[in-house]
Amino acid sequence: MNVSDYFKLKAAKVDEWLGRLLPAEDEAPETIHQAMRYSIFAGGKRLRPILAIATGEVFGAEERELMPAACALEMIHTYSLIHDDLPAMDNDQWRRGRPTCHVKFGEAIAILAGDALLTQAFLTLAGYETANLDRKIRVISEVARAAATTRALIGGQVLDIESEGKQITSEQLEAIHRAKTGALIRCSVQIGAILGNANESQLNLLTKYGEKAGLAFQVADDLLDETATSEELGKTAGKDAASQKATYTAFYGLNGAREMAARLCQEAIDAAKCVERDVRMLESIASFIVERKS
Amino acid sequence: MNVSDYFKLKAAKVDEWLGRLLPAEDEAPETIHQAMRYSIFAGGKRLRPILAIATGEVFGAEERELMPAACALEMIHTYSLIHDDLPAMDNDQWRRGRPTCHVKFGEAIAILAGDALLTQAFLTLAGYETANLDRKIRVISEVARAAATTRALIGGQVLDIESEGKQITSEQLEAIHRAKTGALIRCSVQIGAILGNANESQLNLLTKYGEKAGLAFQVADDLLDETATSEELGKTAGKDAASQKATYTAFYGLNGAREMAARLCQEAIDAAKCVERDVRMLESIASFIVERKS
Repeated sequence: MNVSDYFKLKAAKVDEWLGRLLPAEDEAPETIHQAMRYSIFAGGKRLRPILAIATGEVFGAEERELMPAACALEMIHTYSLIHDDLPAMDNDQWRRGRPTCHVKFGEAIAILAGDALLTQAFLTLAGYETANLDRKIRVISEVARAAATTRALIGGQVLDIESEGKQITSEQLEAIHRAKTGALIRCSVQIGAILGNANESQLNLLTKYGEKAGLAFQVADDLLDETATSEELGKTAGKDAASQKATYTAFYGLNGAREMAARLCQEAIDAAKCVERDVRMLESIASFIVERKS
Repeated sequence: MNVSDYFKLKAAKVDEWLGRLLPAEDEAPETIHQAMRYSIFAGGKRLRPILAIATGEVFGAEERELMPAACALEMIHTYSLIHDDLPAMDNDQWRRGRPTCHVKFGEAIAILAGDALLTQAFLTLAGYETANLDRKIRVISEVARAAATTRALIGGQVLDIESEGKQITSEQLEAIHRAKTGALIRCSVQIGAILGNANESQLNLLTKYGEKAGLAFQVADDLLDETATSEELGKTAGKDAASQKATYTAFYGLNGAREMAARLCQEAIDAAKCVERDVRMLESIASFIVERKS
């Protein structure tokens, strides 16, 4: 299967599971459930769940464990987008081709919808059927660690906010993105490996794959922000440059950033190859990450 | 030991554990860790952790499980206060005798500090040593459920926001508080019981105790908001009436609300007595909840 069909197939499956895992829109209090679903069903690529699923499939992980864990990763990703878009943060009006959550539902409900998706992620991670409780606890720990403050999601957003308008080094730029986008992408790969009972050496290689793919994703994101239109992106293009955010393209130029993305993609693929399993889909996903158009 | 000494003793212990469980103030990124600690060490009563501890002690629960779980409950309570105080929600400037988190650190960091405490709660719940993984998963599930949207913490805040300035019924008022404050207080008691391996009948009785105590707490809170000074409360007194929030005192008058608090307290005590263990501290805590001066 080519990577584009794989994404379509798995994204549909993720959406089906998310539909079951989230409270229904007509369940009280309705507003919050509508806001949660509005943001999660806004047409995201489902990169994080698909990385977890593709990695899990390499090792024959069980679907009843893999799908809830994959969906929890998407809930956390969506919560972080809702909160990042708030007026007090990036103040974005537009996301995935439609008004952001706070524009649609107001700021209070948007804050609470983010909180609720984060909480629902852990409810989901604690709730699925499994015969291996050790593995389940490990997954919860890894996800919480990736979503926390130290070299993790929230910490990355803090660094990002604090760096705005300031002169930062390329090391600081990398630290921001390793934390802000890298930690959860790496974690997604790790969760797939853990649920598939990968051994420690395989887990280390896949962690490296996830790290490189996560950085490649961010470099490609910066490139798209400069070269794609708002329509293609479904969000305001050129916003990073306008708000004087440090980006890979600002540091290395368009060509430098393109070379960097290609190199990171290759390093990810090299790490995956060493796992000595059929990792072709992981290779294709790494390439897709740097070649995507939105 | 009298209840006031018990609170002092256990609050000190909770603070000691919280100090170890939260990232250090000088750990990068420092701002977020300072904000988390600023809000959690603002001198709260530690009611939720102490309810968990007191219930756990009735059944001889292990400290290495009880203390982290108790601290996680306080992290969630504190996150909910930080977010409730935000300009987009209740817009409170003053909490526990000092500026609220967003006044001190700005809105962006306050939102993230709340997110971080919620995340840290689950990291803590997944991280402690135990020989009983089933019990650990059950605790994570119960806490996530109490913090979620359906008859739970976030849902209660949504109902509260949506009811502001509107005419609501006494049933709606009770639904708000059962969710907004009641769910986490009830959960605190349940966590203590679960970690002490209480049987199902004991767990049901203690759930009832927790429910009644949670409602009694809210009625007492409304009474204090009308009768205590801002100085005694450490937050703006009379704010609920000023913002036209529905309260128990508005519905039942001062005397009616006092009678209601006393009745709920007695119902909590009656439920606890049926457990047929030494529940004297739980009885004293129920009385303390309605008799407290702040």
